Amino acid sequence: MLISDLTTPALLVDRDVLDANLATMSAALPGPRLRPHVKAHKTTALARRQAAHGHTGFTCATVRECEVMAAAGLGADLLLANEVLDTRRLGALVTGGARVTVAVDSAETIAAAAAGGVREVLVDVNVGLARCGCPPEKAGDLADAARAAGLHVRGVMGYEGHLMLVPAPDRGRLTRDAMELLVRAAGDVGGAVISAGGTGTYLDNTWATEIQAGSYALMDTAYAGIGHPFGQALSVLGTVISVAPDHAVLDVGLKSLAMDHGLPTIEGAEVRFCSDEHTTFVPRDPVRVGARVRVLPAHVDPTVALHERMHLVDGDAVLETWPVDMRGW
Amino acid sequence: MLISDLTTPALLVDRDVLDANLATMSAALPGPRLRPHVKAHKTTALARRQAAHGHTGFTCATVRECEVMAAAGLGADLLLANEVLDTRRLGALVTGGARVTVAVDSAETIAAAAAGGVREVLVDVNVGLARCGCPPEKAGDLADAARAAGLHVRGVMGYEGHLMLVPAPDRGRLTRDAMELLVRAAGDVGGAVISAGGTGTYLDNTWATEIQAGSYALMDTAYAGIGHPFGQALSVLGTVISVAPDHAVLDVGLKSLAMDHGLPTIEGAEVRFCSDEHTTFVPRDPVRVGARVRVLPAHVDPTVALHERMHLVDGDAVLETWPVDMRGW
Repeated sequence: MLISDLTTPALLVDRDVLDANLATMSAALPGPRLRPHVKAHKTTALARRQAAHGHTGFTCATVRECEVMAAAGLGADLLLANEVLDTRRLGALVTGGARVTVAVDSAETIAAAAAGGVREVLVDVNVGLARCGCPPEKAGDLADAARAAGLHVRGVMGYEGHLMLVPAPDRGRLTRDAMELLVRAAGDVGGAVISAGGTGTYLDNTWATEIQAGSYALMDTAYAGIGHPFGQALSVLGTVISVAPDHAVLDVGLKSLAMDHGLPTIEGAEVRFCSDEHTTFVPRDPVRVGARVRVLPAHVDPTVALHERMHLVDGDAVLETWPVDMRGW
Repeated sequence: MLISDLTTPALLVDRDVLDANLATMSAALPGPRLRPHVKAHKTTALARRQAAHGHTGFTCATVRECEVMAAAGLGADLLLANEVLDTRRLGALVTGGARVTVAVDSAETIAAAAAGGVREVLVDVNVGLARCGCPPEKAGDLADAARAAGLHVRGVMGYEGHLMLVPAPDRGRLTRDAMELLVRAAGDVGGAVISAGGTGTYLDNTWATEIQAGSYALMDTAYAGIGHPFGQALSVLGTVISVAPDHAVLDVGLKSLAMDHGLPTIEGAEVRFCSDEHTTFVPRDPVRVGARVRVLPAHVDPTVALHERMHLVDGDAVLETWPVDMRGW
């Protein structure tokens, strides 16, 4: 099959770039030093490729991601790096033989984990991103409360998400400051795990015992800006459906690429705006109606979540088609 | 079932507000004066409710929307108000008994319609939105070409999408200017149909024979700003998963609401930012972990496209659950 046979819009993954990204990351963070985050691709076929590179523990953002990973035989060590109140489905996974660790940052989330049948937790510590996580000085008390509730505390997590796109060298200095908080909390909490980091800080963060990077596999134009050695593996293939004297229109729009990080990029063209099912762009060289064009999204995670499937390609050849099987909640 | 039983994030549709919106629109634009656009809800159960209000012709943006509408028995008069090059699946619908009219704006899209087995077209005219549509002065020639290719030309369409959120009275004046172009093109093209308009211009546009409004049914905060008599029927239900001294966090994020029109709104709170699965907000009154909060998205169409289902609710009671069955392409 060729990409010209695909219904557009279609998510394309360049096989060579993907494999190079996986190999580069595995060389830097081998085996358990990396806990790949599946939220960035939501695709068990891609997670299986990450497992083949030696990473058998995975990070998830939703209960659904845990369920589908476990069902695919990838549930040896799943971290739900997020707080959940409704833990019944997680408990069912544990009963079914998966290893599931969940983040807790409050008495309520500890009670929910215990009540739902989850046995292992990480204490989530706020290291500067204004989101989840307890204050660092409360982490020890929460660990005690979790143990009192019968839970095994594996350690801490703390996501320095606000630093991912900060340019070097500030990124390194700020990561050190954030991780100082986490390492101190880890001392209070006990346990072997210090889980943190992401694609932006994968080299800066030398304090975490495991890095939760996800975007490195497929990449996006936001991450491309910081100069890491990962290539743009993901694009959205579109068809030119209309050509006007001063612009052209693709059948790729808001419903096939996420706009939270801004407009997408088209090589050799200026993107003017996106509508639900359209991108209006100004090509440098004339394009014809029916031509296929690849669009690079600014943010990979929510773009992938809009698609039912992704196609692994080598040039114009479609090698495999993978269901994006971890969508929804 | 109560909304407290739902897994979050969950799409809620307030039954009373929805029914009021449908009734208000049907009173203003009865029967064939409205051709509801299904792209705004992607849900045949909701389209069936629109049909019950007397609107039996529908507007679609994708081939998939046409297919699912036809399969649901709602294919009496479907307009695919978009250019398509791969028309084979549309031809199959026509063969299966659905009435499908497709927009054309070029020799290529006319050839595709004819080759794919579509029998009826509208000539799409650019009325000022820099997107699809032929120049008005070319519409007559395209109609001749379509007839020469064996197609029945039902008339014209022209979407004044750039005017939807313009405040009155400018919106009325600019709509008149745009529709002057379309009416003139309609004279050159022939046929009975002048299809145009949307929720923003549903009262301004008195030149179109049918209005393609969609957002009026569920609404969003962007459209709420122009003061039309449609209420916010749609919200995303979230659970408070973490509470910090200066903010709280919901399990609703970029993957459950679209950000292309900006941040969502929470009554009685200030939204700070959204991440993949989180909204960080500052509530006016304290909230507790586990509380349920409704989030109003800025743009309804791409928000709905992120969800597998929507729940029709009356207060805290879940009345029905509808699959969002027109997603994908």
